[in-house]
Amino acid sequence: MSDASERVRNSFAKQAFMQLLGAELTYIAAGEVDITLPFRADLVQQHGFLHAGVSAAIADSACGYAALSLMPADSAVLSVEFKVNMLAPASGAKFVARGRIVRAGKTITVVRGEVIAIAGDGTSKVVLELLGTMMTVRGNGLTD
Amino acid sequence: MSDASERVRNSFAKQAFMQLLGAELTYIAAGEVDITLPFRADLVQQHGFLHAGVSAAIADSACGYAALSLMPADSAVLSVEFKVNMLAPASGAKFVARGRIVRAGKTITVVRGEVIAIAGDGTSKVVLELLGTMMTVRGNGLTD
Amino acid sequence: MSDASERVRNSFAKQAFMQLLGAELTYIAAGEVDITLPFRADLVQQHGFLHAGVSAAIADSACGYAALSLMPADSAVLSVEFKVNMLAPASGAKFVARGRIVRAGKTITVVRGEVIAIAGDGTSKVVLELLGTMMTVRGNGLTD
Amino acid sequence: MSDASERVRNSFAKQAFMQLLGAELTYIAAGEVDITLPFRADLVQQHGFLHAGVSAAIADSACGYAALSLMPADSAVLSVEFKVNMLAPASGAKFVARGRIVRAGKTITVVRGEVIAIAGDGTSKVVLELLGTMMTVRGNGLTD
Repeated sequence: MSDASERVRNSFAKQAFMQLLGAELTYIAAGEVDITLPFRADLVQQHGFLHAGVSAAIADSACGYAALSLMPADSAVLSVEFKVNMLAPASGAKFVARGRIVRAGKTITVVRGEVIAIAGDGTSKVVLELLGTMMTVRGNGLTD
Repeated sequence: MSDASERVRNSFAKQAFMQLLGAELTYIAAGEVDITLPFRADLVQQHGFLHAGVSAAIADSACGYAALSLMPADSAVLSVEFKVNMLAPASGAKFVARGRIVRAGKTITVVRGEVIAIAGDGTSKVVLELLGTMMTVRGNGLTD
Repeated sequence: MSDASERVRNSFAKQAFMQLLGAELTYIAAGEVDITLPFRADLVQQHGFLHAGVSAAIADSACGYAALSLMPADSAVLSVEFKVNMLAPASGAKFVARGRIVRAGKTITVVRGEVIAIAGDGTSKVVLELLGTMMTVRGNGLTD
Repeated sequence: MSDASERVRNSFAKQAFMQLLGAELTYIAAGEVDITLPFRADLVQQHGFLHAGVSAAIADSACGYAALSLMPADSAVLSVEFKVNMLAPASGAKFVARGRIVRAGKTITVVRGEVIAIAGDGTSKVVLELLGTMMTVRGNGLTD
């Protein structure tokens, strides 16, 4: 797992958008990646909750890296599609996106994600569920 | 439409995350909203393309405001869920998210969105398709 | 739960399509419903596997009834939308669709489903995952 | 197109489930397939409308064949995933599922579908929208 873990860390470091959000990789295992995001006032939608696009972005990244962690060393991962349900208003002091593998195939990997909002007092709630599809790309081809 | 247009503009102005991205409202009509986002190097994923979470965020916002534009004056809009397919690498000088109404019901509004990447020479391609569900919330209740 | 269970059974008995498929309710609890479908040669797609539409149909029904089991007595349930991923070729002697509640709200219930294929020797595999949205409808209104 | 059309017809003829429903191929062009289904009382859900699983099944098949129509001659098509929104109660004398290509890639084809309900007097309404992902499989491999 150490090689895969390093590949995930190297790729995440290139996701400038994750840095703009202030998101960090906080857990990597085979088929499992967590990304943690502290709340910030410039990440909200019109009602003061975390924007659904932000929750979706960290969930998509966590799922993509969970998929990448199981792929061959010369592979890249592409998000083919994902679907998210927003379960509750995304309020909290920080947010943890958990990406997990449902099934890893040669070309297609099915992933499941959730975003958990953690309040200042430690109480937590699930605010988003994701079901999506990642694709293994070999060699230099970054497109299908 | 002028009242609805003003409600959309007022709400968008409160979406701090859209300002962080540098996104702007560029078209509002009944059931139709466009959001335009210039490319910026801090919005990318690991291969240098616009992060799928960014494309999804502007598509979700455009669709939410397309839905809000048809809702009663005392309503707020919530994203229940959305599904996105990424069609091509999101490279371009700017990106236009188009949110359109498929069907507006009393409680549930079904929306369709797309994100178009426009290159410096004016050529364009669709990079994301969205199919999603918005909900009308009346009065003060921002949750279901 | 006995009243809710009876409501689920009464409603399922009216789903003529479930009878056409040969599907049966095999488990009902609060927020949890299973539907079991024996394999039949007239339910297949072009490669001899269970048609994705059949798997999706029993998963949707199981999820809808899981949602209905938690709704007030005068309610009906509508499928707003669902998303399914096909994980493996749907071959087996029988198929069990499991519908479970992710979050039950006043109007919107988020559901998760899976379809498990069970071979003649008892081995099993998950062939479909579902993430969807159900809606509570009160009184006589069956539409939104 | 005549070869592709013949491949679509041959494959559809093997979909025993489409025959059980009484569905027919009524239009085939490059990237476009329609399937028509007359209403039948044994295809309904608990409120007497066409079961969402039936609408989804004909939409999925129409989209899969729209994708197959553009694939190389030695290819098979697999449904990776699809998402459907139900827009209105599915009542009508017949239903037409329209499958269309959004983007055809080497491995992944993105599809859009809709199901139109046509009443006895000829009036029609869209009752379902689909956005999904198909996969090209070459040679004998029917799995990923």
